Amino acid sequence: MYAAGDVRIEDVPDPSIVDPTDAILRVTRACICGSDLWPYGSLEPRETGRAMGHEAIGVVEDVGSDVHTLKQGDLVVMPFAFSDGTCAFCREGLHTACVHGGFFDDYGVSAAQAEAVRVPYADGTLYPLPVGEDDALMPSLLTLSDVMGTGHHAAAVANVGPGKRAAVVGDGAVGLCAVIAAKRLGAGQIIMMGRHDDRIALAREFGATDVVSERGEEAVERVRELTGGEGVHSVLECVGHGESMETAIGIARPGGAVGRVGVPQHTEMPGSEPAFFANITVGGGPAPVRAYLDELLPDVLEGRIEPGKVFDRKVGLDGVPDGYRAMADRESIKVMVTP
Amino acid sequence: MYAAGDVRIEDVPDPSIVDPTDAILRVTRACICGSDLWPYGSLEPRETGRAMGHEAIGVVEDVGSDVHTLKQGDLVVMPFAFSDGTCAFCREGLHTACVHGGFFDDYGVSAAQAEAVRVPYADGTLYPLPVGEDDALMPSLLTLSDVMGTGHHAAAVANVGPGKRAAVVGDGAVGLCAVIAAKRLGAGQIIMMGRHDDRIALAREFGATDVVSERGEEAVERVRELTGGEGVHSVLECVGHGESMETAIGIARPGGAVGRVGVPQHTEMPGSEPAFFANITVGGGPAPVRAYLDELLPDVLEGRIEPGKVFDRKVGLDGVPDGYRAMADRESIKVMVTP
Repeated sequence: MYAAGDVRIEDVPDPSIVDPTDAILRVTRACICGSDLWPYGSLEPRETGRAMGHEAIGVVEDVGSDVHTLKQGDLVVMPFAFSDGTCAFCREGLHTACVHGGFFDDYGVSAAQAEAVRVPYADGTLYPLPVGEDDALMPSLLTLSDVMGTGHHAAAVANVGPGKRAAVVGDGAVGLCAVIAAKRLGAGQIIMMGRHDDRIALAREFGATDVVSERGEEAVERVRELTGGEGVHSVLECVGHGESMETAIGIARPGGAVGRVGVPQHTEMPGSEPAFFANITVGGGPAPVRAYLDELLPDVLEGRIEPGKVFDRKVGLDGVPDGYRAMADRESIKVMVTP
Repeated sequence: MYAAGDVRIEDVPDPSIVDPTDAILRVTRACICGSDLWPYGSLEPRETGRAMGHEAIGVVEDVGSDVHTLKQGDLVVMPFAFSDGTCAFCREGLHTACVHGGFFDDYGVSAAQAEAVRVPYADGTLYPLPVGEDDALMPSLLTLSDVMGTGHHAAAVANVGPGKRAAVVGDGAVGLCAVIAAKRLGAGQIIMMGRHDDRIALAREFGATDVVSERGEEAVERVRELTGGEGVHSVLECVGHGESMETAIGIARPGGAVGRVGVPQHTEMPGSEPAFFANITVGGGPAPVRAYLDELLPDVLEGRIEPGKVFDRKVGLDGVPDGYRAMADRESIKVMVTP
């Protein structure tokens, strides 16, 4: 990506092992993320393009001398952040705070909307998949690299639990996965805040019990009507705008929690006072999707959840620029890339 | 209070039963709260004075026809918020979200820096004390009406637990009680952020293991040095300024929690981005001190905690205006009032 709206497919040197803990993946599936749309809308023009893509499934092509759990030919899912798997934070399950960790985007040429990607700390980062590279479950497995784990993080941080009321702010792929996550954790009511027919239909399929298409103050009132005036125990904030956070706090029940996973586009958070007076907790951040794979993978493999339905378009590498456009124009929910 | 800095002691009509669920207390002990200093510093001049005071111990003088658990002569502690004790939020232990609840300050003439106070929802609000009205434990028992319960709330929301690292931002009475609370919940390290010698000495007596007197960026660096570079698991924010919240987020460990109990003096909360990228949770609000009495009262009665040491000055009603001044000038930590 060279500037807002300017995505190019270029021939670059093949990635190769740099550190002994690296692996090289041949990417079999990648995708475009809602968070990629932030730079797509705002990136300042630059001379050197920014490598893009942080979600992938791929086949291990090569490993460094210090990689012990993976071998050539293994099919693996690559979480959107790399992590050593051994530091205090990784051991606690917060891999996105790994002391050696980082994000793929903009990390040299190592990004996933490509034929191959270099993966640091391969042992800690990659997760082997027990299926073939063209298995029918690929779309759902691919979501475990980011959006399904991220939706789950929102639900976990927002303390979704059996019988509780939940609301999802944001009807992008993460928001839709957050509906799956809320249902999976037993929420008794799941309100989707959204206004696109195709997304609402999918949200209902995933388990949303109510839909609120209003915005701002009207949305808050509508949610209050749907919840006996109280608001919801758990708000899954999957956008990252100041306005969406304001709505999130407005619809939370006193004592409730907001789990935010939308990358914040604001340095200050609105709603400090209403959140305080209602004892609403706001948490969340980059999801430790690596930690959630143990829990989510069996549900995908055994068909209990189908987050892959968020993909409504599939392109080759050459189709990536138009894929960005389609997602930015809300023509597509999420685009899968098959390099 | 008629304006910032203008506190007057006036003869007003005695409070009387208005609703059948009311009780009238003869106030035996009251105090001045750190939160009273906000209007003391900023209240716009007004024609009708604002009644002040929300912390009290007193003797029941009269009860309405619908009060069943209290009788004339009972000695009770009055939490700073009234609550019906029966609604969904009270049953969940969040009495400060009671659907019939509210705060004493500015609630008609019912405020506690007075000879008597009208208490709505007396059955739900008041908590009987098994001691005489001049018991030596009065100072510590009086803190259960607000500051000790509020410090405990900060600790509870910040998930203080055995062996964890905690830091307290704010060396007022609530901050000092937060040290007690952190120690009581088993914190392995308790860092007090403060700069007044008398308060630091008390914090150490209460269990603080380290003291950081720097401010801003320097304070953050100092805490990082004291915590192996990681920051603390739990931050107990007992001030309410934007800067103190920024510090709180800066010293929190990734995945950690900030429990805020200082009434926010900012509509937007700083640190949205750093809190997000480190997965730091921010929660808290008006403490449900009524809920915490069951847990904290035995510790006071049996001498395991002595939060009453935060009182370093005692005045009659006539001394209240000078008590405000002394607290605002940091001459006094907390002033007890004996009407």
